[in-house]
Order: sequence, then C-alpha cells, then structure tokens
Amino acid sequence: MRELSDRTGVAVPTLKFYLREGLLHAGERTSPNQAQYDDSHVDRVRLIRALIEVGGLPIARAAEVVTAMQTPGMPVSSVFGIAQRAVSERALPDDAESTHSAGSVPSDARGSLPTRTTGEALIAELCAARGWAVHANNPGLAMAARVLDTYESLGQRRLLAVLDAYAAAADRVAAADLAAVAAAAEETRGDLSVMSDVVIVGTVLGDSLLAGLRRIAQEAESFRRFPAPPPAASATPHQQDPPC
Amino acid sequence: MRELSDRTGVAVPTLKFYLREGLLHAGERTSPNQAQYDDSHVDRVRLIRALIEVGGLPIARAAEVVTAMQTPGMPVSSVFGIAQRAVSERALPDDAESTHSAGSVPSDARGSLPTRTTGEALIAELCAARGWAVHANNPGLAMAARVLDTYESLGQRRLLAVLDAYAAAADRVAAADLAAVAAAAEETRGDLSVMSDVVIVGTVLGDSLLAGLRRIAQEAESFRRFPAPPPAASATPHQQDPPC
Repeated sequence: MRELSDRTGVAVPTLKFYLREGLLHAGERTSPNQAQYDDSHVDRVRLIRALIEVGGLPIARAAEVVTAMQTPGMPVSSVFGIAQRAVSERALPDDAESTHSAGSVPSDARGSLPTRTTGEALIAELCAARGWAVHANNPGLAMAARVLDTYESLGQRRLLAVLDAYAAAADRVAAADLAAVAAAAEETRGDLSVMSDVVIVGTVLGDSLLAGLRRIAQEAESFRRFPAPPPAASATPHQQDPPC
Repeated sequence: MRELSDRTGVAVPTLKFYLREGLLHAGERTSPNQAQYDDSHVDRVRLIRALIEVGGLPIARAAEVVTAMQTPGMPVSSVFGIAQRAVSERALPDDAESTHSAGSVPSDARGSLPTRTTGEALIAELCAARGWAVHANNPGLAMAARVLDTYESLGQRRLLAVLDAYAAAADRVAAADLAAVAAAAEETRGDLSVMSDVVIVGTVLGDSLLAGLRRIAQEAESFRRFPAPPPAASATPHQQDPPC
C-alpha cells in the first residue's frame, strides 16, 4: 500500500478509505498484514482522483460511477446515463432526481392541458427542431429548462436568444463525444469496458474542458467587440510571440 | 423584511445574512427596528439565489460578483473576468489562482526552453489556430489544459481528438454570449450596468445551460450510434407525440 501511495501520490489513509467505500478493488493478500497492488490499482486510483478533483464529483458519485464501469455488459447508453447523472447532481434542483423531470408532460387526472414553464416549452421545441429523442429522465432537460426559467425570472429574456447557438454547439460536442466512443469500439472490437471508460471520463471531464474553452473564446470575442484600454504591464496577452 | 421574505421566498435569517455579508444593500430605515425594501432588493435577492442555486457559486464568490456589478464604469472585459473567475474556482487546481497560469510561458533564469505539458501545448496551438488572443490569467487556459493532461495521464489520448470540435462549439457559444451583450448595449445606449448584468448572469448560468444541452444531445446521439434494447415502460421517450 505504501508503494501504491508512492506511485499515485495519494496518501495511505485516503487509499484505505477508497478500499472501505468500494471505490478501489482489494489487492491480492500475501500475508495477514500485506496485500499486493498492481497496475490496475494504480489506474483505478488515478481515475478516482480525476473524477473527484478535475471532474468535481462528490466521493459518493465517483463510487457509483466506478461501480457502473465494473458491471459487465452494460450498454453504452446506460453508462452515459450514469455518468450524466453523476455530473449533473449539483446543477439540479432538489426534487429533480425524481422520475418526474422538468421536460416530461404530466398527465394528470383533471385532464387539463399540461402547464409548462417557459424553459420547459423552449426545450421541448428545441428537441423537436433538432430531432433529439431522449428519455424524460435525461438530467439535461431539467438543467437546461431551469437556466432558461431563471433567465426569465431575472428579467433577462434577451439571454433566451442564445439558445439556438448553444444547441448547435451541444450537437457538435456530442457528435465528437460519440465519435471518440465509436473509435474506441472500433480499435477494441467493441470492448464495452474500454468504451465505458471513454464515456465516463469524457462525460465527467468534458464539461470542464468545454467551460474552459468557452472562457477563452469569450475573452477573445469580448476584446473584438468591446476593445478595452491597454492592459496593465502585469497582464500581458497570452503568448505574445507568436501572436495567439 | 418579512415582506421581502414573502416576495422572494427566502427566509428572514438568510436575508439578514446577505445584509451582513454585503450581498444585499441596506433598506431605507423608517424606525429603529424597521427598514423599507423595494423592487431593487427583490431583484438583488433573486439574482443572489440564481448565482448560488442555479450557477453553483459559493456565497463568497456571489458576493464578489454582485460587488463588481455595483462598481460604476467597469469595462465589459473586466466584468467578464470577474464572472469567469467566480465560476471557474472549483474547476481549477489549488495553485491556479496565482498569476502564473498553466497557459503562461515562464521565463526562467536558466534561459532554457519553457517546458509545457501536453495540455498547455495543445491549448497554445489552439489559440494560435483560432486567433484567440487572451491574457495569461484567463481561467479557461488552466481549466482546459488540466482536462487534456488528465485525459493523457488516464491513458485516454483518444479523447484529445474531441478538442477541435469543442473549440468550434466554444467559439459559437461565445459569439452568442457577446451578441447578447451587444444587443443589451444597443437597447440601452451602452448602459454598463445592464451590460454587466447580462455578462454575469450569462457567464455564470450559461455553463449549466450548455452542459444540460450537451447531455440531451449526447443521449440522442448515443441512441443513433448505439441502438439499445427498447426502454422499460417507466422510461418513455421524451414527448412521444409529436416525436422529439
């Protein structure tokens, strides 16, 4: 365990915690007080750290995700569902984990027309326009509708105009995400565990990658649209030579 | 204050906390134990709740953001910087808030070539290819480079192939973000406080909107690429009629 700690940079008490919580599989016991850990343990610890530190998952969610990865024969769409819900939890309202998602159409006993918020209606229109066919429990439906409703309640209806561009961007990102999964499938002749790895790592960390690139593009675009006074000497443009 | 609580749905002790912490401006005092709160207080409380609950900001970051909004004459690019850093904090490594960002090129005394991680080199190439000119302290540089480095350290180099598609998507999103700011500028003849509102709300909540749309598009695309067995009765496709 000391060696596993050295190889991963993770403290022994933390490794013991991962073992207890089922995030890390047991090593091969060589004596009552010793166990042998191999490369599979090193890989697992690196994955756990990435999900927690870079992906921002709470430990309980990271545990769910690594458990799902070990379930043999789980279809790709189910792995996506688990990874998506793990990474969406903090962005969802408290009641959105129930089966009734913001995007679903409740058929109530009164027989009246379902009442939808502005955000729910906009997302349903978008699904139809884009040909997006998804389950009502997709966590993105509630997340996106909630942001749109918040724009409206804050008196920021003009921000609703970004929706089409965001949807086109999301389509492009999702196509790249699935192309990576398909490439992994082709290389490994459909090895589901390799495909699950790509789905989970790409889903959990991809939000951060996309958000980071958005910050860079926003600043570049804001300079183009709203030129500011020359920056202070301490804040030189990124990589002045070559221009970038 | 009871009335402000009723109008916003936020408990009185929480409102008192916002007052103490400077997130909420004081009301007009009408007696030693009473103060008058108006629509500006209602708007402010709604904004604070949105930044915290929907945008996921810690209270201290929300306080920084609302303080920045009240600074007269702050240029749009500075407001972007404040909003971006507020929403990036949890995604950054502990040392990334210092001035030396992952994307900067340290000029050290040894005169050797700067050593860059794979992620830093890829992001620098991307900036050059896209014509993105940004400051070295843009938080997106470190965020994006860190995810790419993590893909590599997890043995997921195939995920690096998504980068160009993500960058194109980020450009599209940023163009929409800035178009919303420009529309606000035009409507209000350049009222910086209205523009700041759009920048802050759109930057902080836009990550969630984009992530939500990505989950929807991912599921739709995963069904197209990897058709799964018919879903259980409890998980009916979103809005079956009309198809969507």
